[in-house]
Amino acid sequence: MSTAAKGLAGVVAAETEMSFIDGERGVLEYVGIPIDELARNSTFEETVFLLWNRRLPTASELESFASEIRAAYGIPQRALDMINSLPDSAEPMHVLRSLISYLALEDDNPNSVDPSEVRSKAIRLLAQAPIITAAFDRKRRGVEFVAPDASLSLAGNFLYMLNGEKPTETMERALDVCLILHADHGLNASTFTSRVIISTLSDIYSALTGAVGALRGPLHGGANEGVMLMLNEIGSLDEVEPYVMGKLSRKEKIMGMGHRVYKTLDPRATYLKTLAEQLARDTNNYDLYEKSRNVEQIMEREVGAKGIYPNVDFYSATTYHCIGLRLDLFTPMFAISRISGWTGHCLEQLAAGRLIRPSAEYIGPHEQPYVPIGDRSS
Amino acid sequence: MSTAAKGLAGVVAAETEMSFIDGERGVLEYVGIPIDELARNSTFEETVFLLWNRRLPTASELESFASEIRAAYGIPQRALDMINSLPDSAEPMHVLRSLISYLALEDDNPNSVDPSEVRSKAIRLLAQAPIITAAFDRKRRGVEFVAPDASLSLAGNFLYMLNGEKPTETMERALDVCLILHADHGLNASTFTSRVIISTLSDIYSALTGAVGALRGPLHGGANEGVMLMLNEIGSLDEVEPYVMGKLSRKEKIMGMGHRVYKTLDPRATYLKTLAEQLARDTNNYDLYEKSRNVEQIMEREVGAKGIYPNVDFYSATTYHCIGLRLDLFTPMFAISRISGWTGHCLEQLAAGRLIRPSAEYIGPHEQPYVPIGDRSS
Repeated sequence: MSTAAKGLAGVVAAETEMSFIDGERGVLEYVGIPIDELARNSTFEETVFLLWNRRLPTASELESFASEIRAAYGIPQRALDMINSLPDSAEPMHVLRSLISYLALEDDNPNSVDPSEVRSKAIRLLAQAPIITAAFDRKRRGVEFVAPDASLSLAGNFLYMLNGEKPTETMERALDVCLILHADHGLNASTFTSRVIISTLSDIYSALTGAVGALRGPLHGGANEGVMLMLNEIGSLDEVEPYVMGKLSRKEKIMGMGHRVYKTLDPRATYLKTLAEQLARDTNNYDLYEKSRNVEQIMEREVGAKGIYPNVDFYSATTYHCIGLRLDLFTPMFAISRISGWTGHCLEQLAAGRLIRPSAEYIGPHEQPYVPIGDRSS
Repeated sequence: MSTAAKGLAGVVAAETEMSFIDGERGVLEYVGIPIDELARNSTFEETVFLLWNRRLPTASELESFASEIRAAYGIPQRALDMINSLPDSAEPMHVLRSLISYLALEDDNPNSVDPSEVRSKAIRLLAQAPIITAAFDRKRRGVEFVAPDASLSLAGNFLYMLNGEKPTETMERALDVCLILHADHGLNASTFTSRVIISTLSDIYSALTGAVGALRGPLHGGANEGVMLMLNEIGSLDEVEPYVMGKLSRKEKIMGMGHRVYKTLDPRATYLKTLAEQLARDTNNYDLYEKSRNVEQIMEREVGAKGIYPNVDFYSATTYHCIGLRLDLFTPMFAISRISGWTGHCLEQLAAGRLIRPSAEYIGPHEQPYVPIGDRSS
């Protein structure tokens, strides 16, 4: 198969110092540190520092970096007015894409590709994306905007703005872990999109707007919604077996199972499963966890040998549901986290300084005449 | 050099039946028909039909296709209100990107990737992009919105909405030719962006939003503004020689000269040069044309052997200036035309049905420990 037919699989399109993936062994490292270590021990803010600076921060560096993010909690009044004027039926991913695009108009110098300015814009966008998402969700629910609380972590503030009350420690921690797990993942389609866009020396708003657009696709970030829809479709625990076996016999895909890159267990799924179980117990959603685990067990029994295991979406769905996120906020959640990876990759691409421009293979006719309109047949 | 270091140059990332480029021989064909033939004989509407249907239309097909486009002249009132609320200082490319993104919110079914629905959305976006651009330009100039005129061609209507009066035939024709020349050009960075985004099965609004973002980069669509800035910088005709020679001796780039793909004359520049000359004469801008021609002649004398010739941007600048476009509308003009190529490529990518996901080469450390925060040194 040509590289086109394989969707460029295996073609190296960029160098990165951020994440390393070994799909055969099921390894994901951020700057060399196994993802499971980070999920168990780190925070999202610390992980972003790690990705952007290629090392863990000292205590005072972390404090100052987290303060910088917290200081950026807030969006311009005109952006808030715009959110409040949007149709309630809008999909949050379309809203997030449109508002990130709009924020360029509120920036005095949106086009700068100077690394330190791009870094400042990246911090602002990281802080603002949860605010956009929470503000729109409240608006469509007909409840009043909750102003951000700069004493909270990014995860905590998002849940606070969404629900109007401070989250429990378990909920904040669960969301924080999800943010860590989704922060970066090599050259996935949305990250690649952001690198292609910034490679023309366009701006960070353009790059992130495109990336959000790519992420919303069902073959990419949109997949986590599919898991939840599946779990809802399976009515009760004893329907899991016939449901999965039916899908398999019809050669249909089971959502959240298998990954283009991982041929074994997705290393992001391990700790997430433990968290999802705990959270499901705490929030009276244990049936949801049990259904998930059953799907996983049947899949392992039936197709485990083919390397089809749960991916990061599989237990994210239960986790997001348990912390009270509406279905169409699952993918925006992914976007909020991945902004850290996208912006880090944009900085790497700017440093690499080369336009990304592959070729197309033309498969049509050549040297055709321009036939005058009266002489054409349809 | 690795494919990453070369920005994927020469790597085939997609198949297309629309445009064929032979950079060595200076050939560009749309569905086999030489671009120069189309520029001299076709119209933009006919060219779009050709690109999307892989053949020229009959008279009645062309009439019905053009009617379909004209019937889509107009934007939702809320989009117009939004344009009127934007800061006057906004760059039109940021505005176009934001409004295309917003139009998804006004579509009842924005996410459909059904080919016939994507085609209808493509027609609407093609018709709406000039309206967005003209509406914002009038708003920032403090003059009232001019409603579209469905008796006019896309080029004619754009000039009418921009200037508030019907364009001369020469002006309409000049803009129409520019639209033909910019409609498609293989896998340039913005077209590639749109294909990567839609390859996740995301939507046409996301794909085009990302493409506009990529096009605005100075290494891509933004280059046509650079030509005009250069011509303004060169005060008079006798300053051309010292200006160009100075640039060459400092090894600086001359805007609008040379192209990553073409090693000889850009076939889009031939007829455009004739048109620019005519238009410059008609509009009392002949000095601008003469300066351009002088730059070209000096460049041919000095570096013609290196394959550095005028590209499509070079005489576009004079043309756009002569038809009265403000500098920052040059790139939106490019976008308005290229929407035809982007949407055509999106339809091809949906038919190909494969996620585009290359790899990154990780160049950092491995198997690092998570050092507790108290034990870290900066």
